[in-house]
Amino acid sequence: MSDFYSCINKDDAVVLLVDHQTGLISGLVRDYGVDEFKNNVMALANTAKFFDLPVILTTSFENGPNGPLMQELVELFPHAPKIARPGQINAWDNEDFVKAIEETGKKQLIIAGVVTDVCVAFPALSAVNAGYEVFVATDASGTFSKQVADAALTRMAHGGVQLLNWFSIACELQRDWRNDVEGFGTLISSHLPGYQNLIGSYRGAQRDFKQPN
Amino acid sequence: MSDFYSCINKDDAVVLLVDHQTGLISGLVRDYGVDEFKNNVMALANTAKFFDLPVILTTSFENGPNGPLMQELVELFPHAPKIARPGQINAWDNEDFVKAIEETGKKQLIIAGVVTDVCVAFPALSAVNAGYEVFVATDASGTFSKQVADAALTRMAHGGVQLLNWFSIACELQRDWRNDVEGFGTLISSHLPGYQNLIGSYRGAQRDFKQPN
Amino acid sequence: MSDFYSCINKDDAVVLLVDHQTGLISGLVRDYGVDEFKNNVMALANTAKFFDLPVILTTSFENGPNGPLMQELVELFPHAPKIARPGQINAWDNEDFVKAIEETGKKQLIIAGVVTDVCVAFPALSAVNAGYEVFVATDASGTFSKQVADAALTRMAHGGVQLLNWFSIACELQRDWRNDVEGFGTLISSHLPGYQNLIGSYRGAQRDFKQPN
Amino acid sequence: MSDFYSCINKDDAVVLLVDHQTGLISGLVRDYGVDEFKNNVMALANTAKFFDLPVILTTSFENGPNGPLMQELVELFPHAPKIARPGQINAWDNEDFVKAIEETGKKQLIIAGVVTDVCVAFPALSAVNAGYEVFVATDASGTFSKQVADAALTRMAHGGVQLLNWFSIACELQRDWRNDVEGFGTLISSHLPGYQNLIGSYRGAQRDFKQPN
Amino acid sequence: MSDFYSCINKDDAVVLLVDHQTGLISGLVRDYGVDEFKNNVMALANTAKFFDLPVILTTSFENGPNGPLMQELVELFPHAPKIARPGQINAWDNEDFVKAIEETGKKQLIIAGVVTDVCVAFPALSAVNAGYEVFVATDASGTFSKQVADAALTRMAHGGVQLLNWFSIACELQRDWRNDVEGFGTLISSHLPGYQNLIGSYRGAQRDFKQPN
Amino acid sequence: MSDFYSCINKDDAVVLLVDHQTGLISGLVRDYGVDEFKNNVMALANTAKFFDLPVILTTSFENGPNGPLMQELVELFPHAPKIARPGQINAWDNEDFVKAIEETGKKQLIIAGVVTDVCVAFPALSAVNAGYEVFVATDASGTFSKQVADAALTRMAHGGVQLLNWFSIACELQRDWRNDVEGFGTLISSHLPGYQNLIGSYRGAQRDFKQPN
Amino acid sequence: MSDFYSCINKDDAVVLLVDHQTGLISGLVRDYGVDEFKNNVMALANTAKFFDLPVILTTSFENGPNGPLMQELVELFPHAPKIARPGQINAWDNEDFVKAIEETGKKQLIIAGVVTDVCVAFPALSAVNAGYEVFVATDASGTFSKQVADAALTRMAHGGVQLLNWFSIACELQRDWRNDVEGFGTLISSHLPGYQNLIGSYRGAQRDFKQPN
Amino acid sequence: MSDFYSCINKDDAVVLLVDHQTGLISGLVRDYGVDEFKNNVMALANTAKFFDLPVILTTSFENGPNGPLMQELVELFPHAPKIARPGQINAWDNEDFVKAIEETGKKQLIIAGVVTDVCVAFPALSAVNAGYEVFVATDASGTFSKQVADAALTRMAHGGVQLLNWFSIACELQRDWRNDVEGFGTLISSHLPGYQNLIGSYRGAQRDFKQPN
Repeated sequence: MSDFYSCINKDDAVVLLVDHQTGLISGLVRDYGVDEFKNNVMALANTAKFFDLPVILTTSFENGPNGPLMQELVELFPHAPKIARPGQINAWDNEDFVKAIEETGKKQLIIAGVVTDVCVAFPALSAVNAGYEVFVATDASGTFSKQVADAALTRMAHGGVQLLNWFSIACELQRDWRNDVEGFGTLISSHLPGYQNLIGSYRGAQRDFKQPN
Repeated sequence: MSDFYSCINKDDAVVLLVDHQTGLISGLVRDYGVDEFKNNVMALANTAKFFDLPVILTTSFENGPNGPLMQELVELFPHAPKIARPGQINAWDNEDFVKAIEETGKKQLIIAGVVTDVCVAFPALSAVNAGYEVFVATDASGTFSKQVADAALTRMAHGGVQLLNWFSIACELQRDWRNDVEGFGTLISSHLPGYQNLIGSYRGAQRDFKQPN
Repeated sequence: MSDFYSCINKDDAVVLLVDHQTGLISGLVRDYGVDEFKNNVMALANTAKFFDLPVILTTSFENGPNGPLMQELVELFPHAPKIARPGQINAWDNEDFVKAIEETGKKQLIIAGVVTDVCVAFPALSAVNAGYEVFVATDASGTFSKQVADAALTRMAHGGVQLLNWFSIACELQRDWRNDVEGFGTLISSHLPGYQNLIGSYRGAQRDFKQPN
Repeated sequence: MSDFYSCINKDDAVVLLVDHQTGLISGLVRDYGVDEFKNNVMALANTAKFFDLPVILTTSFENGPNGPLMQELVELFPHAPKIARPGQINAWDNEDFVKAIEETGKKQLIIAGVVTDVCVAFPALSAVNAGYEVFVATDASGTFSKQVADAALTRMAHGGVQLLNWFSIACELQRDWRNDVEGFGTLISSHLPGYQNLIGSYRGAQRDFKQPN
Repeated sequence: MSDFYSCINKDDAVVLLVDHQTGLISGLVRDYGVDEFKNNVMALANTAKFFDLPVILTTSFENGPNGPLMQELVELFPHAPKIARPGQINAWDNEDFVKAIEETGKKQLIIAGVVTDVCVAFPALSAVNAGYEVFVATDASGTFSKQVADAALTRMAHGGVQLLNWFSIACELQRDWRNDVEGFGTLISSHLPGYQNLIGSYRGAQRDFKQPN
Repeated sequence: MSDFYSCINKDDAVVLLVDHQTGLISGLVRDYGVDEFKNNVMALANTAKFFDLPVILTTSFENGPNGPLMQELVELFPHAPKIARPGQINAWDNEDFVKAIEETGKKQLIIAGVVTDVCVAFPALSAVNAGYEVFVATDASGTFSKQVADAALTRMAHGGVQLLNWFSIACELQRDWRNDVEGFGTLISSHLPGYQNLIGSYRGAQRDFKQPN
Repeated sequence: MSDFYSCINKDDAVVLLVDHQTGLISGLVRDYGVDEFKNNVMALANTAKFFDLPVILTTSFENGPNGPLMQELVELFPHAPKIARPGQINAWDNEDFVKAIEETGKKQLIIAGVVTDVCVAFPALSAVNAGYEVFVATDASGTFSKQVADAALTRMAHGGVQLLNWFSIACELQRDWRNDVEGFGTLISSHLPGYQNLIGSYRGAQRDFKQPN
Repeated sequence: MSDFYSCINKDDAVVLLVDHQTGLISGLVRDYGVDEFKNNVMALANTAKFFDLPVILTTSFENGPNGPLMQELVELFPHAPKIARPGQINAWDNEDFVKAIEETGKKQLIIAGVVTDVCVAFPALSAVNAGYEVFVATDASGTFSKQVADAALTRMAHGGVQLLNWFSIACELQRDWRNDVEGFGTLISSHLPGYQNLIGSYRGAQRDFKQPN
């Protein structure tokens, strides 16, 4: 009934982080709270790190008002290809970027970026046309307003892109907690304060009930 | 013109309640009000009970911060299979869970859970691929934010899942009030305070107009 | 590229008003403001009247808490078939209702009702399956919450239903102002206070500039 | 403990409608829905009519883009003083306006207008300083945004103005339903569709329960 | 620096529930969700019961569209004075109502009702003028819109009324958990599903950690 | 996997601005802020100008309450065809309008207008049926409410229309900054105050760090 | 009854623009839309210019991430004192700033700035304590969130500050249109697109009705 | 004109953190996003640390469902008095708590806690009555809903409490950047990702412009 759903596979996937530059985030992103957006971007980045997925970074005019890539991303992925595009708006129009993807040999692309309607939507739709399976990390991508984001996400969904938040991506990659309970727990709780509270309460209860022993 | 719509049939349907655990609800669900969400979950559960649908419960790490299943669900379905998954995030990856579904012999799955984007979306999309008709109870499923829920619901709708609130599910199962006017009225009014007010006013009017007799 | 769009034609269309009963509106509709919703329902009704479209009314348990049909609809359509369903929730399950539609000989159905997810979605999807072109008047249909409405509209859109507000329906039926400028102007301005203000200002300007003559 | 509260008295009150002009409403009012705002203004006007309160109308540059007074107000109050201010922004700066108030001999002023922060706040605060008791009809007054309205209402509340919606004003004037049950019921239900629904349901119940007799 | 704050004392307080009638709630209350509002009203009522505070009920035209008092309140307080006002809108204008208050000998009034701007604000401000300490239970009081509620609450706050939600009232009455840990815990958790989840998780943890013993 | 996505090509595209008339914008558009909407319309218009795309203007009853075309559009495109429709609501029903499009020889249509659900949706869907590739500029199109816009956008997306905001359109036309860095930078920064701030800060930093030289 | 209200007088007022720096606006202001905020700031600035009020500019660490003052302000007020504070957060702690105010001899201060809770609230409350009449331009002041703004505005209102939007300030300064109809009309319409639409429609009507002559 | 404003002085202030327990935050706080709330609490805590203010911690039933204090607070203030209240809801009713405050010798109290309407409002109002200057950190305090928070903040503001967000508190304590530019910059930027972006862009520009040297 559906030929649409496919699961992200950690052996087939590469993460593309497009234009997470300090100026663009500061000046243009208004569909997520500031704290929330940074947390989401770093959560996606740390997910990539945790699963050892290849990561490709790209920027648009980083020597100018758009600003440099978030420093945390630079530090987290010191060896990742970083394509400073000399002018192409759609990263897919940049040969080095496409080549970097091809060199990974992966066919599933996880894309996030700023702004959603341009820096994410253009390469995402281009990649679908080029035969890739494309997954957009919706909450690690930001833009001018909720209305703009909605239009862009609708365009992508109708164009064959799958929409997922970072947490779904992490869970789809992990598949089974037993692959690394400790590691995966640390990954997600470090980006989900709500989950940290649960752990705190659980440990508190542990102290309460173990005390008599 | 459409090959999409199919009606839920009470002889073909099974209800899957995925990870409605006290910790997860408390720590993670933010797209519904607390009162409203609990009411929706119990409304779906009572709908299943009323129509005597088979129910399958499953949990993720219930001995830990995620917490136990909501006590009300445990009490309402003492004989339902309850699959405590040892690690699989997607319940569909758990053989016991799939086997429990197969044993019901039903081909229509009604799914709700916490969180929508993972615990609901993963098995829902897997089940579509496996040939089931899948109905997600949107308002008995909760997650981090309205934006995350929207992305997950879009993904599922494009993947062939039908989206319904609990009230639509109850009505689609009932089809005709005359099958049990009293019983169905009690079911829905006990979860719809707005409907209770209507009944209250109607009874008030009855007193007013019958008094002269 | 699309086989989807079809225009409403005033010679092919019938309007189905499902369960606009005082109790249901009062107790259950929360996705529109009270003033706004009543205005939208009456705007759709007056549109039907203006274009002399056949109208079919139906109610669910009108002798009970659901309450009678809105008095204004009863008065506006004294000769319309009014099917008081003895129990069927989906009006399409009521033979008299379907027969009343068939007797009009029309193949385009414009549907509105309360609540959107049940009383509208069920017959709308059934009618698509039965081969009709189905247009739902979104803003003359109400339900429990914006979230419930969104899920129901998504379900219908994916099921082949076209979504339009009453104003679009009126405009698609009118096609050309010259068919009756005066009449159509009166129709829409009587339900659009914003348009009335424009007319007021225009007449004010007329007075200003004609005074010297 | 409080020297603040005083009740509106129908023998002491006059209603001031400031600049409810078609252009201003159309172009500037954005803190209320269009349907809702018109309904609120007419509800206040009909309240004044019902209680036979003196009404004073005033406009700012009605021969120009601001447009004429809403035609409904002109027709409802054909004999009310209508002060077309030649330039004063604060109506209190216009001697004819103040004189018209003084001639009523009333000491309680009920003010509404467009825009709240200027055409309402200026005369309201001026009137407090001049020793009047001032009541602003918040929901029959409109302005650019909710944020602008909030600041203006805060300024007025701290300046000694009492804030009421039209319904509170009507109820405070009526004090006791028995003064005219029929009339007051008609007044409020004609502007509260929610109340009309209640009446409709009540009459429906009456039909149900009286039928056997 | 402030002469304003005073704490509610369970020996000095009486609870006034004004016009919580099924019709009024159904037709007019739109500033709270339906589930949420009913829960808040019952939470306040159960708080009064728990602390054995005197409760006075009053209604406006209960034989008519306004409908009877919520059945749950009638059952909870079978012996409370219930003043059916024959016409007075402000309950303070009804001598029996004021007398019922005086007979309790209490000087602190906790008021909730429908609608906030009329049925709550009028008696609340009247009572302040009459020398009572007045506490309005904001979330057990409902009205047409958030904007209307905000204006009414501002009016009351400036008029010397203290604004509290039901939970604050319960806590201010309880003062110390040790007065009845079990009872108070049951009271609040039965109206706070969020708190129930915490208890559920805590009990789950207890099972986990006690099992080895 | 998708046959849907196609990129706008500046050699194939024509811009259709439908009914951006002062009265319609003032009286009917409520889904965008006033400042924001005007900025979006002019941003799209200036984008068309910058890329030298053919532009076709059309109006509905401009000698009447709908008002004239925004003066800024008239001045920006003095030589564009301007089709004053004598009555057709759907611009596609006007032969001159369609002929004007055909004369451009372009097959990609970028459409914006007021109101979205009628003046945009009708010609957009008609054009898809006629074989054009259709791109709707969502944020340069306005209507009565967010709910109405959502239904109209959903209808169009399911009908084969691509949804883009003006910024995406500008970027898709530009493709590569190097085609005209200065010009494109001026275009977008003049409509994105957020981008202007980035430029301001960058120039400030330039002054800081170059000073020592 | 109130000793609070005082009207701004153009001979007594000075405008203080505090820290409208490109970085601070870009990185921190989230309670207004980007377009809207810039428009509001420039509207206040042009109001000051129009009434020839003395303006004092001040900045905090403009050689650093906070960025330079908005270039438009620098150009509009080339001769205004511009106090670059070397470290004081509260501008009132800077002697040059206070001296610049004293040198104007004015006793009414109109203050706007970024961020509202610090750069506005601190000097505003300090100035009240120092005996000035203080008016804060709420919509030309921005901060982290609506919640933060609300707390800061409440603090200021209770501290004796009057809250006004830029439009109220302009109107309170102008008092009477006849002081300069043309000039004042140009000032406000250039910052109110809604007002421009009204003028456009009025001119359109003028063309219509004058044509026959 | 105002006797209200007083500035926080780092030599006179003590910080009271009331019931920031993992269970309460998880189960009850819904007026702030989860990420945002944790950031605000830690920002206030680190502000206290930075200025070396005395801090007093208190908890309510920490051996139970309310859960232990946030682990981060325990670690940050290992030597702070931590009063585990045996039952008092209002911390001010606990002698040890009041004594701990008195022992600091400070007269300015900065209070934050969970939930705002109880754990913050009760001691804050009690402290005002006891003669302290009280400052509530609004955004480091959380509760059930925005509506509940608004009522509680209004009650406190009218009761003589000053409302500030954590950032205002930090700035009011710092007064002058030059007291420790580096330290204060680190403090605020570590809790303001928006500010971090500005620093990132500034450093990027520095690299750009210094490179040629």
